[in-house]
Amino acid sequence: MPAYDPQNPFAKILRGEFPCYKVYENEHVLAFLDIMPRSPGHTLVIPKAPARNILDIKADDFTHVARAAHKIAAAAMTAFEADGITVQQFNEPAGGQVVFHLHMHVMPRKNGVALLLPASHKEDGKVLEANAAKLIAALK
Amino acid sequence: MPAYDPQNPFAKILRGEFPCYKVYENEHVLAFLDIMPRSPGHTLVIPKAPARNILDIKADDFTHVARAAHKIAAAAMTAFEADGITVQQFNEPAGGQVVFHLHMHVMPRKNGVALLLPASHKEDGKVLEANAAKLIAALK
Repeated sequence: MPAYDPQNPFAKILRGEFPCYKVYENEHVLAFLDIMPRSPGHTLVIPKAPARNILDIKADDFTHVARAAHKIAAAAMTAFEADGITVQQFNEPAGGQVVFHLHMHVMPRKNGVALLLPASHKEDGKVLEANAAKLIAALK
Repeated sequence: MPAYDPQNPFAKILRGEFPCYKVYENEHVLAFLDIMPRSPGHTLVIPKAPARNILDIKADDFTHVARAAHKIAAAAMTAFEADGITVQQFNEPAGGQVVFHLHMHVMPRKNGVALLLPASHKEDGKVLEANAAKLIAALK
């Protein structure tokens, strides 16, 4: 497996070099909206520790990611009046990974509404801003 | 959300009323092969605590599931000579859930090989037995 690349876009978000629609942060993780959401409120949870994916992350760091995803799932149900949640986490290109800093997808779902294809629609900034505000409010 | 149903098939596996191809167990979780695998070695990790899904599970129980999935992902790379891992976790019918005891899917992947559709192929018992043995060996 290739080594962790500190120039990946999520590393740049962690260093403040790229902007993001932040919804949650603690000592160990950052969570922000996917700018190409597969459903409204689609959120990514990433560890602050450098980790390419599940195959090189430390167990404790992965559990911090899972714990934040758990919290965000509950809040997303309220924030987006969702009927369910789909969690996905992709590792290596064979596993579906495109950005090589570990991330867990938390996608609010509605009955009868399929997920959009990955990276098929870039969301409007105003919509992302409004969705981030909704999720932040529900996380309080 | 409906209450947890103790008659769901994974609760029956936990009580020993249904068999399973067990690959891993500790105080908090059980992991076994999906009998309708979407890829060879497709494993399910479930909490021993009763929980319908991410929306009613306690944070600690969810992190126990994640910790076991992390361990199994690494072992599955070796056991199945995989190129990657896809992790999925579905909540409520809208989120893709079919069995209502929380489970995390850990699916070994090969480059260029798509996942089978869910529940599209019931695997032969001898293949499952051999795959369980491979994964157990890699977990040691």
